[in-house]
Amino acid sequence: MLDKLFNPQSVAVVGATPKEGKVGHIVLKNIISQFTGEVYAVNPSYTEVLGVKCYPSVLDIPYEVDLAVIVVPARAVLDVLEQCGKKGVHNVVVISAGFKETGREGALLEAKLTEICRKYGINLVGPNCLGMINTHAQLNATFSKITPPKGNIAFLSQSGAFILAVIDWAISSNFGFSKIVSLGNKAVLDECDFMEYLASDDETDVIMLYLEGVRDGRRFIEVARRVSRKKPVVVMKSGRTEAGARAASSHTGSLAGSFAAFKAAFQQCGVVQADTIEELFDFSLILSNIQNIEKGIAIVTNSGGPGVMAADAVETFGLELARFERETIEKLKRALPPEASIYNPVDVIGDADADRFGIAARIISEDRNVGAIIAILTPTARIDFEKATDYVTGISKPVVTCFMGGESVLPAVEKLKKHRIVNFFDPVRAVKSLSAVKTYGKTKKETYQESAQFEVDKEVVRDIINEARKRGAKIVGVEGLRVLEAYGINVAPYGLARTADEAVEIADRIGYPVAMKVVSPDIIHKSDVGCVKLNVGKDEVKRTFFEIITRAENYMSNARIDGVLVQRMIEGGKEVIVGMKRDPQFGPLLMFGMGGIYVEVFKDVSFRIAPISKKDALGMIKSVKAYKILKGVRGEKMSDIESIVDVLLRISQLSLDFPDILEMDVNPIKVFEKGCCAIDFRMVIDTSKEV
Amino acid sequence: MLDKLFNPQSVAVVGATPKEGKVGHIVLKNIISQFTGEVYAVNPSYTEVLGVKCYPSVLDIPYEVDLAVIVVPARAVLDVLEQCGKKGVHNVVVISAGFKETGREGALLEAKLTEICRKYGINLVGPNCLGMINTHAQLNATFSKITPPKGNIAFLSQSGAFILAVIDWAISSNFGFSKIVSLGNKAVLDECDFMEYLASDDETDVIMLYLEGVRDGRRFIEVARRVSRKKPVVVMKSGRTEAGARAASSHTGSLAGSFAAFKAAFQQCGVVQADTIEELFDFSLILSNIQNIEKGIAIVTNSGGPGVMAADAVETFGLELARFERETIEKLKRALPPEASIYNPVDVIGDADADRFGIAARIISEDRNVGAIIAILTPTARIDFEKATDYVTGISKPVVTCFMGGESVLPAVEKLKKHRIVNFFDPVRAVKSLSAVKTYGKTKKETYQESAQFEVDKEVVRDIINEARKRGAKIVGVEGLRVLEAYGINVAPYGLARTADEAVEIADRIGYPVAMKVVSPDIIHKSDVGCVKLNVGKDEVKRTFFEIITRAENYMSNARIDGVLVQRMIEGGKEVIVGMKRDPQFGPLLMFGMGGIYVEVFKDVSFRIAPISKKDALGMIKSVKAYKILKGVRGEKMSDIESIVDVLLRISQLSLDFPDILEMDVNPIKVFEKGCCAIDFRMVIDTSKEV
Repeated sequence: MLDKLFNPQSVAVVGATPKEGKVGHIVLKNIISQFTGEVYAVNPSYTEVLGVKCYPSVLDIPYEVDLAVIVVPARAVLDVLEQCGKKGVHNVVVISAGFKETGREGALLEAKLTEICRKYGINLVGPNCLGMINTHAQLNATFSKITPPKGNIAFLSQSGAFILAVIDWAISSNFGFSKIVSLGNKAVLDECDFMEYLASDDETDVIMLYLEGVRDGRRFIEVARRVSRKKPVVVMKSGRTEAGARAASSHTGSLAGSFAAFKAAFQQCGVVQADTIEELFDFSLILSNIQNIEKGIAIVTNSGGPGVMAADAVETFGLELARFERETIEKLKRALPPEASIYNPVDVIGDADADRFGIAARIISEDRNVGAIIAILTPTARIDFEKATDYVTGISKPVVTCFMGGESVLPAVEKLKKHRIVNFFDPVRAVKSLSAVKTYGKTKKETYQESAQFEVDKEVVRDIINEARKRGAKIVGVEGLRVLEAYGINVAPYGLARTADEAVEIADRIGYPVAMKVVSPDIIHKSDVGCVKLNVGKDEVKRTFFEIITRAENYMSNARIDGVLVQRMIEGGKEVIVGMKRDPQFGPLLMFGMGGIYVEVFKDVSFRIAPISKKDALGMIKSVKAYKILKGVRGEKMSDIESIVDVLLRISQLSLDFPDILEMDVNPIKVFEKGCCAIDFRMVIDTSKEV
Repeated sequence: MLDKLFNPQSVAVVGATPKEGKVGHIVLKNIISQFTGEVYAVNPSYTEVLGVKCYPSVLDIPYEVDLAVIVVPARAVLDVLEQCGKKGVHNVVVISAGFKETGREGALLEAKLTEICRKYGINLVGPNCLGMINTHAQLNATFSKITPPKGNIAFLSQSGAFILAVIDWAISSNFGFSKIVSLGNKAVLDECDFMEYLASDDETDVIMLYLEGVRDGRRFIEVARRVSRKKPVVVMKSGRTEAGARAASSHTGSLAGSFAAFKAAFQQCGVVQADTIEELFDFSLILSNIQNIEKGIAIVTNSGGPGVMAADAVETFGLELARFERETIEKLKRALPPEASIYNPVDVIGDADADRFGIAARIISEDRNVGAIIAILTPTARIDFEKATDYVTGISKPVVTCFMGGESVLPAVEKLKKHRIVNFFDPVRAVKSLSAVKTYGKTKKETYQESAQFEVDKEVVRDIINEARKRGAKIVGVEGLRVLEAYGINVAPYGLARTADEAVEIADRIGYPVAMKVVSPDIIHKSDVGCVKLNVGKDEVKRTFFEIITRAENYMSNARIDGVLVQRMIEGGKEVIVGMKRDPQFGPLLMFGMGGIYVEVFKDVSFRIAPISKKDALGMIKSVKAYKILKGVRGEKMSDIESIVDVLLRISQLSLDFPDILEMDVNPIKVFEKGCCAIDFRMVIDTSKEV
């Protein structure tokens, strides 16, 4: 669907001008300097611009136009777009600024723009963007004065200025791109549309993404998951900390979602995350050449120090050093002088020439336990880098090099690049990049599991929500335990007592000791005002009932009191917490953590976005540090992990079934050797809607 | 003392040769190509080498020789050194390899070398090294074919090959050095000697250090602490993880200490730690220009995206965004268009020219809350980088730039460099570097506190150790609680009962309930064999005594049983652990952590090397994550932190007083609102020595 956008036969530049320095001049110049298809200028003031025939309007062009690039002032864009629609131009890039990013009025203008596109079925890039580039079609439809080298990495960026910087840098670093798109305000096309297109673009091996926010979180996950099964998507997201997020929302009109949601989303859809620009480049580059590492890392070096750095980093970044087969060690022993280190990392020592180094590299590459090789060379007098390169390029396994130096290693590095081998000065960067490859390789192989669907009783939940709304209550407390029961989650036995006698009756039925809590929509912090009593024995139930009611009335004379919840006290077990917060961009963000101090002090929690699969749920549980406690420390038996997985899946379903639930806390849930049971519950509902 | 080494009037190259490619040729060539003092060659086979007069031996040189560079084979080095000694040459660089790094024989050779140096008072660099460079004296006494640019950073490296890589890179990056020393095997001079010298070297502003190990940990701390009060010391230590450490010990003869000890040492002496080569360069470079940041960071950018990245990183790396004064905001409002963001980060937006950007930069630099500025520019059509540079260089506060691009920003970057302003492409790297500056600035101001000295009873400890040795016991258990008492540490009341009646007597005296444990040097895991009983009441003491003794005898019929320890059970309080492990390089490594799960599951502990000051002890306690628990969560009162500080200081003193104690665990210590009290103790002693 976007093919003509990237590969047009004809392009019109609307707002083209002969005035140097103007965007309408640079864009036209960029296009005609390389593009081999038809080019038309549009501007009522001229009949010709830069030697290109100029028409008063798009409608006046007597030929078919595949792509229009609009650079007229914002207020004139709607008219031009309408004309494009009428003319049958289906692909438009709006470079002009002055839309959503400028405030309310701009946002209205942008909404109209979107409407026109919908009416005519126009694929629109922007507005408020730098434009787009397809190096393979010799098309530079941006106002960047320079065009980056051709390559196999596509780059989508929410910041146009960042693209300028990247292109400038790419030229001096000979870093090649297939396509570059400045996303702008994403009025019509967004990162998802382009990812979809690029997934089946033969000229693109890796999709590199700079994001400040996403327009539709759920779609992002769905698309990115599909695309990253085909080729790597590397993403850098800024606006992640509180300070950053403030900057993001004051800069673009996009809403910077909480980073927890983004992180969870990226992880769930198998996108490779970069924390810095450097990582964005490094990971994209290496993934454009290597997409999987099956086994351990082998290091060969002519210098111990950098070899040690690499070995250190291998451990730090969760990779493994390969353990050589005996045969390999024998071969290395025969090939290397006695002072050399024949174990991994292999140190051919400082007096090695390229042959000794190369032979060692080949020997280790033949080892069955080796999945990838890091070949490190410092510029000693005896090393001929180009000769070493010939050895390295002959290796059939994934390899990265650390040819450490400046000018003197450049020719070798260029040669390596031709063989799709990436060179790093810093061994740590090399290892970190390999670890990104490993992460990607794993997700690529994973098959996506659909989430389970349980039989539940939605009616009960709907009633509770409606009931709360009728009362104008935003928060539903323990009285909402029925929500959990309706979704098949085990709750510690309880009952709602309206009278002291009822309380005794319930307690007798469920067993002692019991916990007793006031049920009132008006009293939020029940413990603080003495309206929660634990470990109540048989003789104390009646007295406690009256005590709680009295305290509640003392606290707030007109409080609505629905009664007192009587719940069986549950001994033993480990406390965990399961929660949900609806993220504005991604929807229900589920949380898991070990209860109490681990959540409060260590913030040791994990997140995923619903719906989650069984595997996701297990991943959530295993990724908290306190997981060891569930596995059992000091000889304890393992807790029933499966039962928590079940709760997570049911809460996931509940979150999706009821968008009106904004937040939930099932806290604590007690987990035992067999089974688990929810003790307390709380949810926040959206009261803005009608009952 | 090393002045003549770095600034000799005359240099002799022993082993100089006309054979191209040989080390003895390259070294001589390097020296004569730049050095303006006298140069002599030494080699019995020639009368002249490279136009330099050649003598059969050093003794034959009729002039004074300030520095000899030795490149003869290892076996000949001792003779040459002896001759140097006789000739009165006090500074020698031994480039030759074949010493400690090759094994036992080489180590013996190296020991003799050290002996000769001691005899004649020779300052020796190496052996097994690349040599050394003093750019300011035009002296390149290495076999590197190239000489790095002149600058204000000194570089000491334990890896010669790494120096080669760094020099090669430095030339293309125009990164300047004052002095470079390849430390080699450090037979005589080590990193400490050079740090001492460089501390008062006017040509050196920053000392950059690549280490694989240190020779004398205690001296390192002492020297580095002193030196880093004068100028920054930036260190990268490799061989830190287990995998890395294996590589290190197979590579050099140096012992790679556990990284925990290194980390503690670096922190205590105020050395700036770099985790990667990139950080080593970045931190050194920025610290050679900026050495302190007093207030918040202000960001000014012409592009929102990178501004957000920087703002994100400011939070991530523990810096703070400056909050602008109202006056600043007013000034920015007047100077910038309405679409600009006038809050920090200031976004002058994409259509800004150098003037708008520069004026904004100046305005924020005048704000009293701003400590340093990050000036970010992407290469838009309207930005003139060199003009922007003029604004930036006029700012009186510390500033770093992110002029993002390749070729097109180079002239501006060179100009910035002349004004000692560092440019980074990646805003994250800029921020990380500033955070290193802030860390250094803080430590530089800190005055070193001597550790406290307590009155203690050493005799008791000596007796316990001797007693254990006599019995051949490596481990001293609860019976060693007296060690703690002798050092003034409060212990839960206890007594050693030899009979059941004694047990009752003790329990009656100290109060119920009590804990009872067997005291036996032969039974290590007392709980596992049922020889520990907790919560013993008055009526159960006698029976429990016999039960414990019986179980002990059943476990090991010939176990030596000293009796049963009866100790008062201590209710409540928080459990902490204080420990010590003697590190081979740094001595007593003290540990602090919250007891139980926090140590076992979360490994949430902190380390320092004894002796520690009160401030160090407090730092240890505050740097564990679980510190919040000591401060009190959920409305609890704060635990008595001072009392733990006291225990740490006393254990520090104990560790230093008795080098025979190899390891100690005071675990648990119970801390209360007021005071604390040790419950259990265990130490490992060195039994290799005589009683």
